[in-house]
Amino acid sequence: MGTYMDVHHGFEGITGEQLRAAHQADLDNEKKEGVHFERAWADPESGTVYCLSTGPSKEAVQRVHEIAGHKADEIHELRIEL
Amino acid sequence: MGTYMDVHHGFEGITGEQLRAAHQADLDNEKKEGVHFERAWADPESGTVYCLSTGPSKEAVQRVHEIAGHKADEIHELRIEL
Repeated sequence: MGTYMDVHHGFEGITGEQLRAAHQADLDNEKKEGVHFERAWADPESGTVYCLSTGPSKEAVQRVHEIAGHKADEIHELRIEL
Repeated sequence: MGTYMDVHHGFEGITGEQLRAAHQADLDNEKKEGVHFERAWADPESGTVYCLSTGPSKEAVQRVHEIAGHKADEIHELRIEL
């Protein structure tokens, strides 16, 4: 199991409700891939969304995002966590 | 008070000990700016470091990083948190 930070661009003006709906779509689809999305944050000004997750691989995290309809632009495996 | 995600590039191969020392330097200097660094993560493969903090402004977060000797490449205010 690894920990991952994924980054989505292009979400200028995203609202709390929209982020909550997107995060819920991830939660609804994560079990089949053995992934868990722990946190999500958004900077509506730059249109950046970050999600923190745990799971078996980057590819598994991306598959959940794809099923949920919002592929990540970057996924980083966080081998070091403080 | 806001919540911030900052991103540092160019840390390929960073070790847990190096991240811990850098994070400690932030903690040692954060009080004078009213900032608190809550978490830090690193992806040594892509050389990316993320820090999650709270504080009065982006500029205050950057000042702590500058004093600690590692200016952030990007700082995003996270107006939405889940």
